[in-house]
Amino acid sequence: MNNFSFKILKKSKKHKGRAGILTTPHGDIKTPVFMPVGTLASVKGLTPEMVLDTNADIILANTYHLFLRPGTEVLEQLGGIHSFMNWHKPILTDSGGFQVFSLGNLRKITENGVIFNSHLNGDKFEFTPERVIEIQQKIGADIIMPLDECLPAETNIDKTYKSLELTTRWAKRSQEYLNNTGRHSQALFAIIQGGMFPECRKESAEQLLDLNLFGYAIGGLSVGEGPEKMYPLVEYTTGLIPEDKPRYLMGVGTPEDLTTCIKLGIDMFDCVLPTRLARHGAFFTDQGRKSIKRPEYEFEKGPLEENCDCYACRNYSKAYIRHLWRNQEMLGMTLMSIHNIKYLINLVTIIRNNILEE
Amino acid sequence: MNNFSFKILKKSKKHKGRAGILTTPHGDIKTPVFMPVGTLASVKGLTPEMVLDTNADIILANTYHLFLRPGTEVLEQLGGIHSFMNWHKPILTDSGGFQVFSLGNLRKITENGVIFNSHLNGDKFEFTPERVIEIQQKIGADIIMPLDECLPAETNIDKTYKSLELTTRWAKRSQEYLNNTGRHSQALFAIIQGGMFPECRKESAEQLLDLNLFGYAIGGLSVGEGPEKMYPLVEYTTGLIPEDKPRYLMGVGTPEDLTTCIKLGIDMFDCVLPTRLARHGAFFTDQGRKSIKRPEYEFEKGPLEENCDCYACRNYSKAYIRHLWRNQEMLGMTLMSIHNIKYLINLVTIIRNNILEE
Repeated sequence: MNNFSFKILKKSKKHKGRAGILTTPHGDIKTPVFMPVGTLASVKGLTPEMVLDTNADIILANTYHLFLRPGTEVLEQLGGIHSFMNWHKPILTDSGGFQVFSLGNLRKITENGVIFNSHLNGDKFEFTPERVIEIQQKIGADIIMPLDECLPAETNIDKTYKSLELTTRWAKRSQEYLNNTGRHSQALFAIIQGGMFPECRKESAEQLLDLNLFGYAIGGLSVGEGPEKMYPLVEYTTGLIPEDKPRYLMGVGTPEDLTTCIKLGIDMFDCVLPTRLARHGAFFTDQGRKSIKRPEYEFEKGPLEENCDCYACRNYSKAYIRHLWRNQEMLGMTLMSIHNIKYLINLVTIIRNNILEE
Repeated sequence: MNNFSFKILKKSKKHKGRAGILTTPHGDIKTPVFMPVGTLASVKGLTPEMVLDTNADIILANTYHLFLRPGTEVLEQLGGIHSFMNWHKPILTDSGGFQVFSLGNLRKITENGVIFNSHLNGDKFEFTPERVIEIQQKIGADIIMPLDECLPAETNIDKTYKSLELTTRWAKRSQEYLNNTGRHSQALFAIIQGGMFPECRKESAEQLLDLNLFGYAIGGLSVGEGPEKMYPLVEYTTGLIPEDKPRYLMGVGTPEDLTTCIKLGIDMFDCVLPTRLARHGAFFTDQGRKSIKRPEYEFEKGPLEENCDCYACRNYSKAYIRHLWRNQEMLGMTLMSIHNIKYLINLVTIIRNNILEE
């Protein structure tokens, strides 16, 4: 981890937000940051150049999915994920813990790890904390995550306690495995769990802070509990993480989520929302989400959003993108994905600049 | 047509091929040329920048499809097809005659034109020669085609004669309409028909040459007759067109077709093959067509084709593109489309350079 650092440049006086720089072997990440998702080593429908053009500093890929396809042997032989996908800036891999719990219809959790069936062909695998680190070493992302247990929103307090303790033991094993095998080129985060209970969040945070890992993620939120329940939990949990650690809120979010949670002290976000919305014909604007299918866009010369400087808005009308969408031309989805990603990155950048200029 | 010219720079001494320059208001086209197809004002899966990167001098769009969607009113209000799709080099629109005949399950041909039902919703429309020119004026492509009748390969000689005469009358009406309404910004070609009969091809060519149009296309080939039947007809028909006219073989073709037909004197080609093959996982190589699905590519570090300088081959391994393909990631199709288009353009460029350097 010699190659990693996190520096806070400025703390807001108006809220708990901060502007920082997270340094990795593949370059610097300006925080707060939105990380576009490229689950399978491709941000859906975008070339790496297009992703660069959105000003993304880092993208996210997924250990579970990459383990199944193309598999670690391919990634290793092809020189790791950066070279494989032709993206030479930082990459973070999620541990796949979330997928093991959300996708597997047959899975068994033991102290040792998780036995699960591939969602592709039913093949049986075991993910242990050690194996998940080993896989991520072969994938070669800059920031890696430990195996964790992600609970449904309705889990009771007893189960949540037991689960967060398992997540802590797994984080410890992950750290030990990495310390024994790592080559200072990857930084491990911990994932704070604890479901919907502040006391469980506190317990999880304290246990994991004892490990003194490079960064701290908040997992197990945005699982259907709604913003009114999520924001207070984010605020409470963020307050438990020391100021010098990067704080990553996993799987969040919407423009509203980003704006709110940056001001609660979150530094990093990822979400499939911008690309998923694009695939369903929706795009972000300052007046909220809109659907490109609207008949009133038929002759609309303006871009998706007047104030946007993304590739799509610089070059194409709503009328053209609507035409592409109606005809299921792939370019339509690509243009809306670019816009939605850049929209979130611009949003985060504006808040960052405001903090710096306070 | 003041803004158009066609100049032959060099004629081969070894075969009937020639290298030339076709000048249009949106720039020069080096001939022989392969024109990528963007039926609905989008080369499927590619941005205009990607198309530029394949060295394409001109792309093709389709009058029938654009008439149905987005419709001429949208194209007109958005400033024409160049501005609509953000492609500022030359564009050719096919008349849609071929689609009227191949797609419509209900259609009626009269002296006046063709009455057909939309393949999208069954709406009834009439395409007359005049209306097809009017539509193409609103679309705004540089090179436009007249309505023609395209016959199935098995049509008998009597029917073929009658049909080619109708195509001539329609070409004449198209020319008259354009002369009365055109603003010198579009060049009209004629389409030589005549089915599988050399005497009919001769008759069609002679009738259409009387009109002295800017360029001459050969239509009604590559409709299932096979290369052994097509090549002699191309050779014969090409020989009927004066040397100073650009010659366009419509809907052709494969690398073999291009190599052969350039040497028979053809200057222009278009075909959906490179993008269609890509969507089915196939790519061109110097050793023939290959499928990206092959298991032996799993660990293959090399590009799709060693000697290729396309964006895909400059940046990605077969292993990565195979991975994208297996996971139905759109980028895989985009990369293979880029490769296939560039492969044909490179092929044509090499033959052109060989002619220039003879």
